[in-house]
Amino acid sequence: MTDLVTFGETMLRLSPPGDERVETADEYDVDVAGAESNVAVAAQRLGLDAAWLSKVPDSPVGRRVTSELRQHGVTVDVAESPDGRLGTYYLESGDVPRGNNVIYDRANAAVTTATPDELPTERVREATAFHTTGITPGLSETLFETTRDLLSLASEAGTTTTFDLNYRSKVWDPAEARAAVEALFPDVDVLFTAQRDAEHVLGRDGDAEAIARGLQAEFDFDVTVVTRGSEGALAAIDDEVYEQPTFEATDDHPVGTGDSFVGGFLSRFVDGADVPTSLEYGAATAALKRSIPGDIAVVTPGEVESVIDGATAAISR
Amino acid sequence: MTDLVTFGETMLRLSPPGDERVETADEYDVDVAGAESNVAVAAQRLGLDAAWLSKVPDSPVGRRVTSELRQHGVTVDVAESPDGRLGTYYLESGDVPRGNNVIYDRANAAVTTATPDELPTERVREATAFHTTGITPGLSETLFETTRDLLSLASEAGTTTTFDLNYRSKVWDPAEARAAVEALFPDVDVLFTAQRDAEHVLGRDGDAEAIARGLQAEFDFDVTVVTRGSEGALAAIDDEVYEQPTFEATDDHPVGTGDSFVGGFLSRFVDGADVPTSLEYGAATAALKRSIPGDIAVVTPGEVESVIDGATAAISR
Amino acid sequence: MTDLVTFGETMLRLSPPGDERVETADEYDVDVAGAESNVAVAAQRLGLDAAWLSKVPDSPVGRRVTSELRQHGVTVDVAESPDGRLGTYYLESGDVPRGNNVIYDRANAAVTTATPDELPTERVREATAFHTTGITPGLSETLFETTRDLLSLASEAGTTTTFDLNYRSKVWDPAEARAAVEALFPDVDVLFTAQRDAEHVLGRDGDAEAIARGLQAEFDFDVTVVTRGSEGALAAIDDEVYEQPTFEATDDHPVGTGDSFVGGFLSRFVDGADVPTSLEYGAATAALKRSIPGDIAVVTPGEVESVIDGATAAISR
Amino acid sequence: MTDLVTFGETMLRLSPPGDERVETADEYDVDVAGAESNVAVAAQRLGLDAAWLSKVPDSPVGRRVTSELRQHGVTVDVAESPDGRLGTYYLESGDVPRGNNVIYDRANAAVTTATPDELPTERVREATAFHTTGITPGLSETLFETTRDLLSLASEAGTTTTFDLNYRSKVWDPAEARAAVEALFPDVDVLFTAQRDAEHVLGRDGDAEAIARGLQAEFDFDVTVVTRGSEGALAAIDDEVYEQPTFEATDDHPVGTGDSFVGGFLSRFVDGADVPTSLEYGAATAALKRSIPGDIAVVTPGEVESVIDGATAAISR
Amino acid sequence: MTDLVTFGETMLRLSPPGDERVETADEYDVDVAGAESNVAVAAQRLGLDAAWLSKVPDSPVGRRVTSELRQHGVTVDVAESPDGRLGTYYLESGDVPRGNNVIYDRANAAVTTATPDELPTERVREATAFHTTGITPGLSETLFETTRDLLSLASEAGTTTTFDLNYRSKVWDPAEARAAVEALFPDVDVLFTAQRDAEHVLGRDGDAEAIARGLQAEFDFDVTVVTRGSEGALAAIDDEVYEQPTFEATDDHPVGTGDSFVGGFLSRFVDGADVPTSLEYGAATAALKRSIPGDIAVVTPGEVESVIDGATAAISR
Amino acid sequence: MTDLVTFGETMLRLSPPGDERVETADEYDVDVAGAESNVAVAAQRLGLDAAWLSKVPDSPVGRRVTSELRQHGVTVDVAESPDGRLGTYYLESGDVPRGNNVIYDRANAAVTTATPDELPTERVREATAFHTTGITPGLSETLFETTRDLLSLASEAGTTTTFDLNYRSKVWDPAEARAAVEALFPDVDVLFTAQRDAEHVLGRDGDAEAIARGLQAEFDFDVTVVTRGSEGALAAIDDEVYEQPTFEATDDHPVGTGDSFVGGFLSRFVDGADVPTSLEYGAATAALKRSIPGDIAVVTPGEVESVIDGATAAISR
Ligand SMILES: [Ca+2]
Ligand SMILES: [Ca+2]
Ligand SMILES: [Ca+2]
Ligand SMILES: [Ca+2]
Ligand SMILES: [Ca+2]
Ligand SMILES: [Ca+2]
Ligand SMILES: [Ca+2]
Ligand SMILES: [Ca+2]
Ligand SMILES: [Ca+2]
Ligand SMILES: [Ca+2]
Ligand SMILES: [Ca+2]
Ligand SMILES: [Ca+2]
Ligand code: NI
Ligand code: NI
Ligand code: NI
Ligand code: NI
Ligand code: NI
Ligand code: NI
Ligand code: NI
Ligand code: NI
Ligand code: NI
Ligand code: NI
Ligand code: NI
Ligand code: NI
Ligand code: NI
Ligand code: NI
Ligand code: NI
Ligand code: NI
Ligand code: NI
Ligand code: NI
Repeated sequence: MTDLVTFGETMLRLSPPGDERVETADEYDVDVAGAESNVAVAAQRLGLDAAWLSKVPDSPVGRRVTSELRQHGVTVDVAESPDGRLGTYYLESGDVPRGNNVIYDRANAAVTTATPDELPTERVREATAFHTTGITPGLSETLFETTRDLLSLASEAGTTTTFDLNYRSKVWDPAEARAAVEALFPDVDVLFTAQRDAEHVLGRDGDAEAIARGLQAEFDFDVTVVTRGSEGALAAIDDEVYEQPTFEATDDHPVGTGDSFVGGFLSRFVDGADVPTSLEYGAATAALKRSIPGDIAVVTPGEVESVIDGATAAISR
Repeated sequence: MTDLVTFGETMLRLSPPGDERVETADEYDVDVAGAESNVAVAAQRLGLDAAWLSKVPDSPVGRRVTSELRQHGVTVDVAESPDGRLGTYYLESGDVPRGNNVIYDRANAAVTTATPDELPTERVREATAFHTTGITPGLSETLFETTRDLLSLASEAGTTTTFDLNYRSKVWDPAEARAAVEALFPDVDVLFTAQRDAEHVLGRDGDAEAIARGLQAEFDFDVTVVTRGSEGALAAIDDEVYEQPTFEATDDHPVGTGDSFVGGFLSRFVDGADVPTSLEYGAATAALKRSIPGDIAVVTPGEVESVIDGATAAISR
Repeated sequence: MTDLVTFGETMLRLSPPGDERVETADEYDVDVAGAESNVAVAAQRLGLDAAWLSKVPDSPVGRRVTSELRQHGVTVDVAESPDGRLGTYYLESGDVPRGNNVIYDRANAAVTTATPDELPTERVREATAFHTTGITPGLSETLFETTRDLLSLASEAGTTTTFDLNYRSKVWDPAEARAAVEALFPDVDVLFTAQRDAEHVLGRDGDAEAIARGLQAEFDFDVTVVTRGSEGALAAIDDEVYEQPTFEATDDHPVGTGDSFVGGFLSRFVDGADVPTSLEYGAATAALKRSIPGDIAVVTPGEVESVIDGATAAISR
Repeated sequence: MTDLVTFGETMLRLSPPGDERVETADEYDVDVAGAESNVAVAAQRLGLDAAWLSKVPDSPVGRRVTSELRQHGVTVDVAESPDGRLGTYYLESGDVPRGNNVIYDRANAAVTTATPDELPTERVREATAFHTTGITPGLSETLFETTRDLLSLASEAGTTTTFDLNYRSKVWDPAEARAAVEALFPDVDVLFTAQRDAEHVLGRDGDAEAIARGLQAEFDFDVTVVTRGSEGALAAIDDEVYEQPTFEATDDHPVGTGDSFVGGFLSRFVDGADVPTSLEYGAATAALKRSIPGDIAVVTPGEVESVIDGATAAISR
Repeated sequence: MTDLVTFGETMLRLSPPGDERVETADEYDVDVAGAESNVAVAAQRLGLDAAWLSKVPDSPVGRRVTSELRQHGVTVDVAESPDGRLGTYYLESGDVPRGNNVIYDRANAAVTTATPDELPTERVREATAFHTTGITPGLSETLFETTRDLLSLASEAGTTTTFDLNYRSKVWDPAEARAAVEALFPDVDVLFTAQRDAEHVLGRDGDAEAIARGLQAEFDFDVTVVTRGSEGALAAIDDEVYEQPTFEATDDHPVGTGDSFVGGFLSRFVDGADVPTSLEYGAATAALKRSIPGDIAVVTPGEVESVIDGATAAISR
Repeated sequence: MTDLVTFGETMLRLSPPGDERVETADEYDVDVAGAESNVAVAAQRLGLDAAWLSKVPDSPVGRRVTSELRQHGVTVDVAESPDGRLGTYYLESGDVPRGNNVIYDRANAAVTTATPDELPTERVREATAFHTTGITPGLSETLFETTRDLLSLASEAGTTTTFDLNYRSKVWDPAEARAAVEALFPDVDVLFTAQRDAEHVLGRDGDAEAIARGLQAEFDFDVTVVTRGSEGALAAIDDEVYEQPTFEATDDHPVGTGDSFVGGFLSRFVDGADVPTSLEYGAATAALKRSIPGDIAVVTPGEVESVIDGATAAISR
């Protein structure tokens, strides 16, 4: 039985090496990037049995994604499509004042036509937890319906459902996103949301704690996790609110930080740990990710624990 | 005034370095590839004033294409679209028995919505020659119409129209292609076609000479050029047929050979040279291309002439 | 249930890029290389459920191997050792007259202490087939015993046992090798051997057919496959002998050709195909491997079938 | 008509990748570097029609420079010399305490023999502005005369002349430089100078404002811009002095910062903007350059405006 | 006559490029790393005639080490072994919170069997100074004896003996190390030790000065140098104690900092300079090393002097 | 005492990787290339004590050359100049029909001012042999005189003088070259010349044997070696003529083949071997070189002997 089943789109990420520009670079580094598969990899590497469901083209390009995910031990259970394309995105990273620029080329990906009957729904029913994000229902009408159906069948089967709001302004506008995700919330047990998304998409205000308690109250989540960038994260559960500061980390590779937080959190939470422990694990995984190229947290439990223990950076030899 | 105006799609080409595979490579080489822009670059480098018309996304990815083409001196005169994508293709090259494998991801490119009013049609009217290929009308209904309109207005303006049949089985089927290109032929002055396309798309038979004379007769072309892969090329003009063997060349970088032939041919033909001279120039440019990575013939007139003169390969120092 | 379980050492392969030399190169390409895991990957990619058993250090270096193997879908079921090292080998490839030079650094690898109680022997008992090679028993006294025990328990459980003689002169001398492998032959059902190894290690003479029949008679194998380098392969089964020529292929990446042959053969044989079909699949897989960097046949069933069908090398687009 | 014509030497820049050293690196990154062409590229990319005049060897090495400049849209109008060489320079970059080390190999470049009759002087006469630097007249007696003649004919034709003092201690000593540039000042309308050059070459003292006003008074410039490294820049025009602080930026790629400032300034100034606007544009372009490898500001107007608007560095997606 | 003879193990260092991980990188950078050869290279580059004695396999892998050391001018005088291996180590560097991780694979290196009769002991007798470290006697019983014998014969011959304690927890435990090095101390003239090693291995306490004076008193060293990481170093000689702060430096390439300090110190000390001068040279060499990839201080005397003089980081051109 | 002292220019060689072009490549591979240092390296690696005398700039660029040569064990004994430059050359390699193109940028190198009093002439007097080529006297009037003086003092000291004609059409014309080298011949003991140079520079005709005997007779050489490209080489000594065919070799890296032949020949000849043995060693070294990137024969005696013995190309493991 799988501990954690995830569902969503995974793209090929193309980025110029070093500080080079998309316009002038002669080669692009290739990485594999998807919010839900990022979570699956982090959780698998940190001890869970994780699976990723999706739909990809039956081509070397599709296999570029599935091969890399399998490498981390994730069970890849995807529909292979004879026709569709794989979404891609270009990432250009620059130091101050350039920042990180994302150029999506993700329309019409094979996954946008994925329906429940193409997917191994039995896995979802038998899993301990099912995870997806607010990106997936924004990618197509079909994907909204598939996401809704998977959350619903998970819910009925007693699988814990976890959902990261993950608003993407290049995918849809806040009002559309709000309508869609609020329609899904009845089947969601654990919500992750950035404070800024709670404000701009869900129309919340107040401080992070107020936001967490308000969402908790309105949508009856078991756990509501609000992340606040460099200010850390906070989780509401029953009557308690727990805070977790960030661990010190480089700015070098920020893409994927949020997914690594969720993956680290779930690696303990789905295994039965309490919320403070899960938050700490999430924050340490996120910190490590920021030192690692690509979208994925290539980490070990020992490394996460070293961060939590505040192990010094002296060379070990 | 421009000597040669071309119109068509140009894609980003992504290829694993060396003999690596798309599925497992960690970086992809980036090149710029389009049948018509390949012709424009070769012709420009060999002495013409060449321009390339198209429509690209207004983004670093779109500029990846326009910058590289401008580098070779080509005048880039394109509509910039706020929304569309740039077509891409994956090229995987392997030695025997693997061969070269092309995986297109070109649907819904910005260019597929290009209409004449977005393009600098005055350039076409004022040019000595206008060139496009049988790929372009296959990419969308809009592009069929735009191609037809550009050929028509060129024809009316007295601009010589040149057309490379260039059948792509991954774009459309032979019957569709035949209907479309035959509808364009009345406005075409110079036709280039591979013998196999003449057979499988246009339904011709007989040897290359018979095919050239037959097309000439039926469609009233000024010049009909039939290429035969490693067996060389042949051109029918008025009552004459001229043959041109290939020059010896490596198999290392075959993609773009045909476009380089056309670009080399036109660099002389549009400048007023006779057909045998143009054929020889085309064949030598094509041979050089096969030693050069990417889709584009990065050559000089001196190099083309060395190939024609059969200069030996001893190190010159 | 696994279709094919393999057991053996897998090393890190370090090779200077291109034609560079080990002595002067500034970086080495990293690949994963082991006779039995090479077979497992080829078989898995061509349709079987394959597993690889071994023992590796519990370190990033050990994970360098297990991650890459999992990427191809192989089930990796290994003992992780707190202390041992991972064997490495340096491969330097040069064109004529340099050739390929292998420098082993494989002594004292973690795997040399692997005993059956550290391994998932139940997998072997439940598998359709079990495969190992004549390298493994040469690596340590412990590994000779473990190999013997695994073959024995497979045999008892009704699992078909397959064995590739694979003599390595840098591991042991011919007399030692002969004594060891002949002690294992009673539990071997299918033998693969190069003709030169049959001669120099097993002391056979005559042509390949005589050798196959002789081994068959003496050791009562179900199938005896004799490979003859560029001259192809031949298999004796019951009273029949089947011959299979090689498919045309480059000399670029010869390391791993033999394992790819075995992997391709077993992908069909273990699935119930007859010997001629299996031979043909093995030969086509081996030909494809020679165009692919590294030790591993990164191939698909479609590619193998294209080689068998003699598909031409024209660019498909 | 060209908006901005520039004239000067452009070199090939060879630099070891990353933190490697010239002495031990196995490959060098290749970039194109010249004070005046750097200005032309920045100005062209930010909206002007810019041209670069020079003299280069008629060889692949010369074309390495002209091709890269054309890529950014600059009109390249150069004399091609059958004999001369292209100047090169080695750049080694190291973090603290190493710093950036420049090793010139620029003597006897083809450009050092460039005379006005080899250059398209009509372009200078018809341009809105003409720009060169204090490096050019230091490279040879001939170039001093050519610089003087071009400034003079620009002046006569009503073309605004702009001049960046740009003292290079490896080219000449301060006294020589002073004599030469002061001989050119009568034909200069807009002067750019670093405060340290104003002090050490032109013998000025006082604070930046005093220096600007003093130069303005003595040489009757229309605008005098004094740059002060990390402390920003300042411009005197008529009775006003405007100050512009620097924008926050990395130290990673400082070479070319000054030229990017001038290019950014001129992109607005030549287009008719006022001095404060031009200063702000210059400072933002300079800040962006510091995040971009090579000598050239590969920027867009949108990026410059984002810096001016203080857009945050959050990932946009 | 050699100024400085060193003896010890040198390994191949394999490290993923940039921030990549050992587990997932596709190529490793190759460097040459050994505490004593690092010292020899720094000292040679800074003016001494330095030699390195060791034992390496007679193979391309052994030559990878000897070639790179000779490149810096060091006299390489090694026994070449037909059988042994070369030790390797994997270095993975990551920004905060990852740090630098060293994975040794150094057991059973050829050098572990080196005996004095295989080495050019006459070189040691004739040298001005002989240097080794506390790593060498920890690698094998044979190497403990060889180290003891070389120190003893140097001592008898009047060669100054210098010794860097250099405790490695992955080689032996503190008690073993203490017993071994204290047995060598009677033949040591100059001791270098990190303060933490003096505490944890030699059981010292108090501040650095107390430690230096205590060791000096107990073991009768001529000079005792105690290093304190970012807090600088301190040397006791006769009744004086001299302090030396560190120079500002990046954290990018810390591996080899300590050896560079010793090499810089000895380059002056062995040449007759006083201790404060030697300390300053050591500290400046160490600071430069931190900006240079690999284990080795690829520096010049001029660069060291620039650091001492506090030359600014402005671009020199 | 040195066995073989060489004198001449060594350049930095810059070449685009793979099949890329100088005009468009983004990085260049860096190698070290000089006819005489190539000979010194080959001879040193094959057993002689070899030295290289020259004059280089005192800079990281100069050290790029001296470091790489020392790496192969060659004694580097050069004058270091505060001012001059290092010659460079660009090498672009392409498959048929492109060939290898050399673009020299070698004028005004530091070495062109080298006089005997700057060089360690005592080394030449004490050596067994002294070698230079017909390139050196063509580089400057000073170098002609220095070459003449070194040959003369070697001759007087009883040092065997060896001279490779090595005509370079990009350095001087045949008549100039003939006058210069014939003026040096009285002090030359062993001449190497390509047959084509003997014809076009020295005005010889007839077959290779006739040329060798004619030169022998006219200039009284001890040995006259005539090379004939792929047809092998031939040496006249006293009344004998010995022929040596080439060994089979790739075309991949032909630059440096001739120098490797001379280095291989001298490695045996200077050691006292007879002419046929020396020829065979030269031919085998030349064959190996053609499989090795760069200008230098990175070979071992064992590899040369394997080529002579015709060892097969099977993988050794
Ligand atoms: Ca970056
Ligand atoms: Ca590149
Ligand atoms: Ca390119
Ligand atoms: Ca990767
Ligand atoms: Ca190769
Ligand atoms: Ca190195
Ligand atoms: Ca740097
Ligand atoms: Ca390299
Ligand atoms: Ca090299
Ligand atoms: Ca570039
Ligand atoms: Ca790679
Ligand atoms: Ca790989
Ligand atoms: Ni490219
Ligand atoms: Ni990557
Ligand atoms: Ni950084
Ligand atoms: Ni290949
Ligand atoms: Ni990579
Ligand atoms: Ni190839
Ligand atoms: Ni490198
Ligand atoms: Ni690889
Ligand atoms: Ni090859
Ligand atoms: Ni940095
Ligand atoms: Ni950076
Ligand atoms: Ni390195
Ligand atoms: Ni970093
Ligand atoms: Ni750095
Ligand atoms: Ni090639
Ligand atoms: Ni670059
Ligand atoms: Ni190289
Ligand atoms: Ni090759």
